[in-house]
Amino acid sequence: MLAIAVLGCGRIGRIHAGNIARHPRARLATVFDLRSEAARETATALGVEPAASLSAVWADSEVAAVVIATPTDTHVPLITAAVQAGKAVFCEKPIDLDPQRARACWDDIAPRKPRVMVGFNRRFDPSFRALRERLHQGEVGRLELLTITSRDPTPPPADYIRSSGGLLRDMTIHDFDMARFLAGDFTEVQAFGANLIDPEIGKLSDIDTCTVALRARSGALVQISNSRRCAYGYDQRIELFGAAGMLQAGNQRATSVEMWDARATAARDPVLNFFIERYAEAYRAELDAFVAALERGHPMSPNFSDGLEALRLAGAAEESLRTRQTVDLS
Amino acid sequence: MLAIAVLGCGRIGRIHAGNIARHPRARLATVFDLRSEAARETATALGVEPAASLSAVWADSEVAAVVIATPTDTHVPLITAAVQAGKAVFCEKPIDLDPQRARACWDDIAPRKPRVMVGFNRRFDPSFRALRERLHQGEVGRLELLTITSRDPTPPPADYIRSSGGLLRDMTIHDFDMARFLAGDFTEVQAFGANLIDPEIGKLSDIDTCTVALRARSGALVQISNSRRCAYGYDQRIELFGAAGMLQAGNQRATSVEMWDARATAARDPVLNFFIERYAEAYRAELDAFVAALERGHPMSPNFSDGLEALRLAGAAEESLRTRQTVDLS
Amino acid sequence: MLAIAVLGCGRIGRIHAGNIARHPRARLATVFDLRSEAARETATALGVEPAASLSAVWADSEVAAVVIATPTDTHVPLITAAVQAGKAVFCEKPIDLDPQRARACWDDIAPRKPRVMVGFNRRFDPSFRALRERLHQGEVGRLELLTITSRDPTPPPADYIRSSGGLLRDMTIHDFDMARFLAGDFTEVQAFGANLIDPEIGKLSDIDTCTVALRARSGALVQISNSRRCAYGYDQRIELFGAAGMLQAGNQRATSVEMWDARATAARDPVLNFFIERYAEAYRAELDAFVAALERGHPMSPNFSDGLEALRLAGAAEESLRTRQTVDLS
Amino acid sequence: MLAIAVLGCGRIGRIHAGNIARHPRARLATVFDLRSEAARETATALGVEPAASLSAVWADSEVAAVVIATPTDTHVPLITAAVQAGKAVFCEKPIDLDPQRARACWDDIAPRKPRVMVGFNRRFDPSFRALRERLHQGEVGRLELLTITSRDPTPPPADYIRSSGGLLRDMTIHDFDMARFLAGDFTEVQAFGANLIDPEIGKLSDIDTCTVALRARSGALVQISNSRRCAYGYDQRIELFGAAGMLQAGNQRATSVEMWDARATAARDPVLNFFIERYAEAYRAELDAFVAALERGHPMSPNFSDGLEALRLAGAAEESLRTRQTVDLS
Repeated sequence: MLAIAVLGCGRIGRIHAGNIARHPRARLATVFDLRSEAARETATALGVEPAASLSAVWADSEVAAVVIATPTDTHVPLITAAVQAGKAVFCEKPIDLDPQRARACWDDIAPRKPRVMVGFNRRFDPSFRALRERLHQGEVGRLELLTITSRDPTPPPADYIRSSGGLLRDMTIHDFDMARFLAGDFTEVQAFGANLIDPEIGKLSDIDTCTVALRARSGALVQISNSRRCAYGYDQRIELFGAAGMLQAGNQRATSVEMWDARATAARDPVLNFFIERYAEAYRAELDAFVAALERGHPMSPNFSDGLEALRLAGAAEESLRTRQTVDLS
Repeated sequence: MLAIAVLGCGRIGRIHAGNIARHPRARLATVFDLRSEAARETATALGVEPAASLSAVWADSEVAAVVIATPTDTHVPLITAAVQAGKAVFCEKPIDLDPQRARACWDDIAPRKPRVMVGFNRRFDPSFRALRERLHQGEVGRLELLTITSRDPTPPPADYIRSSGGLLRDMTIHDFDMARFLAGDFTEVQAFGANLIDPEIGKLSDIDTCTVALRARSGALVQISNSRRCAYGYDQRIELFGAAGMLQAGNQRATSVEMWDARATAARDPVLNFFIERYAEAYRAELDAFVAALERGHPMSPNFSDGLEALRLAGAAEESLRTRQTVDLS
Repeated sequence: MLAIAVLGCGRIGRIHAGNIARHPRARLATVFDLRSEAARETATALGVEPAASLSAVWADSEVAAVVIATPTDTHVPLITAAVQAGKAVFCEKPIDLDPQRARACWDDIAPRKPRVMVGFNRRFDPSFRALRERLHQGEVGRLELLTITSRDPTPPPADYIRSSGGLLRDMTIHDFDMARFLAGDFTEVQAFGANLIDPEIGKLSDIDTCTVALRARSGALVQISNSRRCAYGYDQRIELFGAAGMLQAGNQRATSVEMWDARATAARDPVLNFFIERYAEAYRAELDAFVAALERGHPMSPNFSDGLEALRLAGAAEESLRTRQTVDLS
Repeated sequence: MLAIAVLGCGRIGRIHAGNIARHPRARLATVFDLRSEAARETATALGVEPAASLSAVWADSEVAAVVIATPTDTHVPLITAAVQAGKAVFCEKPIDLDPQRARACWDDIAPRKPRVMVGFNRRFDPSFRALRERLHQGEVGRLELLTITSRDPTPPPADYIRSSGGLLRDMTIHDFDMARFLAGDFTEVQAFGANLIDPEIGKLSDIDTCTVALRARSGALVQISNSRRCAYGYDQRIELFGAAGMLQAGNQRATSVEMWDARATAARDPVLNFFIERYAEAYRAELDAFVAALERGHPMSPNFSDGLEALRLAGAAEESLRTRQTVDLS
């Protein structure tokens, strides 16, 4: 049984801790959070002892791997410390808001040939995974147009926005990674941003709505659109259009119920409200992939470099917003 | 150009008259209705003169065919007179409420080898027609279960109910014909009836809701359900289940619009409200089949015998309601 | 933590054992199977010791409840023994193929006021549960027509058929229970049966396809159809039609992917193949309801009496097949 | 009855001629085509005499209006001549490939206060019209993101491409007009183009695939994507996302049939293959709007100015392709 410690007991940390606890070939070694009450609560619920300190985690030779689910600005020091302590690392996205700092982190740890996986959970969604497999099996022929729609149910509070790095680094980053997962590398990017939902977001110099277009090295064109607010739930859709057809992955709901009445017919429930529900299965599969890669000594995927690339795309899209030009990526 | 006269200028008569007027190879010769105002109105709208009398229609040698869209109790005498006058006949369903009277009509006219088509319009609906073609092409293998759902938007007025012959002869008769169209002949029938919608219907000894089961000579089982009222429009669905799969023909709407909001997602419009809208294309195709059969001397389909068979099934289902037994049809 | 033993380590026993092992407020005490190898395997996978004998289970005072997932003909003696040993019981459906034997079992144990839940898992499916809640909240008004479609992916082997009690007691029994769950008690039943899929099933005097109609005390009419084979997976659908609209619970799939190409558009995956996948969530919720009822001392639901009623409906439907009459249920 | 002449008897001219012939308050006066055989054929099919010459059409005082469905480079002279002859004009899009020539045409005829409607047929599609009405009724709140997907079934022949003005002026122009119809005026545009389908198109310096992003004066962002080839038919979809929800208009098919088998479930037919089928109802409604505007003296919509604006957007998108910059539209 692979022993894993979880650092950070917020919403996403608790998801990972629970998935580790229920995993047939892994065990939750301990959890840590600066807010010791949060750590204690998570530990108790899952039947483990919270770690007294980070040093205790690094020093525990039974702990083979750590999951980093702490605030973004702590990712780089924690990755570095974990690698130095000889632990494998699963780190939530993004590695850092500053691509240079992230790259420096890698330069620092690379000599140790570290095992680092980055938490782009959507790659593990069964529907998106099926899209990729079916694309690679040639079902739609050569990919020509890829459309990614991603809308959060409600905008985060101003505090979150302030330290988020902005829409493109915080939210669109998932879509940049998904675009890479499905269409490979890119040569050009264009973007529009707008502040349509909440004036507070504009006051923080951020945007809440955007469109992004990318040109892939393969020739395919990609359209991404994002909104920080969506009345009907967490809108997560992908469409692959190719020479021989189209594959779509639609939204998901808790039931298969349809309602028919005088106002509307075949009406479905609102879609699953947010990432915890929508990507529950993806989080389990992601953790399982981390465990399996460690067991078998396989390469991590998505890895540190995937994390850097998504950051680079976000930065280039920001540059396109600023300069009103198509930005070269090659 | 085949000259056709329309007898009866009610809702369905006007539909047929309009379709004849717009048909490229037929022309509307005249229209007749005892309510001369209705006849005049329809005639004017379509640019023809109303007939002065039925005799005038029979005597007009240019009139090759008549469409009978008058009240049911006039169908038998009008069919008889038309055949005697040498006209081809398209008669709305049912031929008569009394199967014996209908059969006697046939015995009477048969020696003249008359051309008579009966108006089971649903056979000409493009979706139901596609079901039959795909069934015959073997797409679902051998047919095992056939499900027909048929619900009217609102119950007719008491006056209509009183002379309708009852739910099974008036409404289910379409489903009996559709069952024959798709599954062939039957050997057994069972039925349940209920008065759930309007107590006035019960006072007239009629039912407003029913379920019918049939066993086909082929072995397939059929389920029909009817309701005289449907909140979301005119519900018309068919499902064919066979050894290799299933074909369904669903409801239809005026637009392809879907609505997504906080209450419901992917919500479609109410379905087309009633037969005039839902079967507009079927009425056109039905009239075209009548014209084509006359032009080419092909057999009529559905013919008088199809009309008799649907009546016989309705009668047997009524017997099952009354006797609480499975009724033999062979 | 409520300690539960599982008797029977076949497919469904293993499902329950796993769900108990993962339940936050229950623990798997032990498992038993006459095939000791099966017991050992299940026990090892879940980290418990298999029981040496049934007596050992009855004698274990820590074991508060048992799950009976053994062959049907052992249900009655095991329920009786478990109740005599003071255990609460969760028993898979059906209680017994012989309604009289099942009733005698109840007469036998009733004085002990036993806690017995019967495994009608479909009541716990989130979609079917939502149907019932929304029906009770009045969303479709008074229920008038209920349609239940239930088709297994492939017919079971002849051996299974031989001891199954026949289609109506083995397969339709789930639909009888679902009909009761949604429409209450019934006054009349009609049925047709056919042997369309596998002649071997006919040789065993069983049917593989059926239609059943029921009349509810409330007035609502119910149509059930079953097939032992379904090309596109495990077809499980329910439709509630009422005065104000319709609710449908459709089939479910592993992904939300749609395929569009030259042959077909918006094509979805085959539906979840069989009960293990389709009702995974229902099995979890069912076990949770059992645990919760025990913790709180609430009545069991579905209970022994629900098991008897479903058997009674199956018997009456068989009588309708045999006598070709509508059978009274009141 | 309003007498209308049709100039140009190609595919689209014949559609308009037929719709005029069947219109209850208009009549087809005559048709003209330089290819006299085409004119004769269309005239005969619709029961009129072809015009001997254009001068004959201009001179015919009974002809109140003309439909111009000739090659694009003849639109400007024909509009001018028709207006000088005092006729109302319905002209197919685009007015001209050269926006300056189109503007000069307007300057030329404007003093006569001409009645000119431009053939943006999609505005009359019942589903797209419903989108607009429901948007204006506030169903989705303030519009934030508009997505237009438009894909032709097969690329046109090289000859057509050569004189088409390029993808953006020939095909995307419909989407520019639809974007204006739904989102009003625009301030900025970005575009990517690619030659992915047919190398011959690239040799003609044209593209066959594109993405366009627009920023509306209202703040809303728009994404358009086009392809000259689509395996599953003529893909025509629109999505409106706003503060309170989303409206989508999906593709349309000839039947409501769904197929379920071992490979796929709920599979629909390919979508209606091309504009003649997909927009049949839109062409009828468009002609009816032209007739109604003439009868009532109402303003034409879409008018000459709408035609100019769509051309201007196409030109700006081409500039964005060329300069790799965001282009200002205000």
